[in-house]
Amino acid sequence: MDEMLAMGKQVLAMQPFSVLIGAELTAFSAGYTELKIPIRPDLRQQHGFVHGGVISYAADNALTYVGGSVLGPAVVTSEFKINYLRPVVDDLIIARASVIYAGKNQAVCRCDVYALSEGKESLCATAQGTIRAIGQTQREP
Amino acid sequence: MDEMLAMGKQVLAMQPFSVLIGAELTAFSAGYTELKIPIRPDLRQQHGFVHGGVISYAADNALTYVGGSVLGPAVVTSEFKINYLRPVVDDLIIARASVIYAGKNQAVCRCDVYALSEGKESLCATAQGTIRAIGQTQREP
Amino acid sequence: MDEMLAMGKQVLAMQPFSVLIGAELTAFSAGYTELKIPIRPDLRQQHGFVHGGVISYAADNALTYVGGSVLGPAVVTSEFKINYLRPVVDDLIIARASVIYAGKNQAVCRCDVYALSEGKESLCATAQGTIRAIGQTQREP
Amino acid sequence: MDEMLAMGKQVLAMQPFSVLIGAELTAFSAGYTELKIPIRPDLRQQHGFVHGGVISYAADNALTYVGGSVLGPAVVTSEFKINYLRPVVDDLIIARASVIYAGKNQAVCRCDVYALSEGKESLCATAQGTIRAIGQTQREP
Repeated sequence: MDEMLAMGKQVLAMQPFSVLIGAELTAFSAGYTELKIPIRPDLRQQHGFVHGGVISYAADNALTYVGGSVLGPAVVTSEFKINYLRPVVDDLIIARASVIYAGKNQAVCRCDVYALSEGKESLCATAQGTIRAIGQTQREP
Repeated sequence: MDEMLAMGKQVLAMQPFSVLIGAELTAFSAGYTELKIPIRPDLRQQHGFVHGGVISYAADNALTYVGGSVLGPAVVTSEFKINYLRPVVDDLIIARASVIYAGKNQAVCRCDVYALSEGKESLCATAQGTIRAIGQTQREP
Repeated sequence: MDEMLAMGKQVLAMQPFSVLIGAELTAFSAGYTELKIPIRPDLRQQHGFVHGGVISYAADNALTYVGGSVLGPAVVTSEFKINYLRPVVDDLIIARASVIYAGKNQAVCRCDVYALSEGKESLCATAQGTIRAIGQTQREP
Repeated sequence: MDEMLAMGKQVLAMQPFSVLIGAELTAFSAGYTELKIPIRPDLRQQHGFVHGGVISYAADNALTYVGGSVLGPAVVTSEFKINYLRPVVDDLIIARASVIYAGKNQAVCRCDVYALSEGKESLCATAQGTIRAIGQTQREP
């Protein structure tokens, strides 16, 4: 495993909410991020579908990571927009994010979220957002 | 407690992910929803801030609820957009959603998310999205 | 007419596209902007409705103005999202924008667009976006 | 020129606002649309850049067209989100839209807007939105 991915995994392991969700970072390089979430029963809603909040978490976090991959570690997600395309009943979701445009202080990124079912992926949500570099002083309270 | 709020609380209790997050429905009437999330350590990220995914969950779920309050229970969130305004270190977030416009099949809704600190609320995120009524047959797999 | 509104009108008069559209700035103060567009036949689409592009122009420009009202004149719209609520057949649209949150370098703003018909206003679109302050050097090519 | 593109051009010629802008439909097939706008002085803002409203018009209209290419001609744009990536000084913009996901009644589509300068294209904005099929009766006033 390369150094950047190892570093990204360490950061994810330090995010209590990501640990609670059970997210796994499976790719992390300059301009590209892949995040997987195995779906446990407690990540679903009342009809058995994966809760939208899990899917938006995946998009939000993959967007933040991919923005950080080009802007450096001190970043925040300023905003994002997500379209849910179909309900997900499957046992694994995969968020893949890439950088559309990076300036010095912010990056516009995109994330597609797939559901994996019997070896076949289907797109279940797509997101677009802005990641912003912040001064270290703002970040550390 | 009125009947509509009681029904809404029952539905929330049936969402395993909302139970995992610990969300509480505190208001639910035609066109208005309030959702509170007490912040435990496992809802934070590596710097101690509330994880963005928790805030987007709150917005997403409050939007879905408020859409359902005017369209009926069989609804999905089609899409939403969220702007994060400030990092949250506090122990309680409150999502308040209202309906901007409701047609027969969809509603455009808004949600403001506040952080409560020492009795004072501050706006920490704002979201806007579309909730869509679906046929019952689509909903029940 | 106050000084700030007069200055805003001057800037609008220097935007050739705003002149082409025929937009009028009717309010401009710190945190609030109102823009009116009388609807001529050439601002409509093939069914006689006001073209969505006119409504998104109104939202975009009102958002930029209101962001500039708190950040200073050198601003750009980073992004916005708009929900169209109903088709507009009327002869006047009014975009009203306000600031939701302003930091040092960017402001998150909201804009509601109304159609005026026989003295009665109806909301026809709602938008939310981010306005960013830029260095003067970036701005002047 | 194929039949579908010819039909699309006819519709564009019937949109007075598109004629005012001077937009040209250069590709239109099931799931793909390309719209070009030669930049005249009256499509700019006070600093000589292409006005954001022209770019959002291009995205909005390309999204509507591409949605209509799979849903049929009676469609409206429900909502879209656009990120502006860089100011445009050039003389031609090109909006390319594709369908990400199409259901029976709505399609989620994406649009990238490019500026052409000395034979080289650069991405200047990216948009994502929802196009919805409507009953013919709603459409024809």
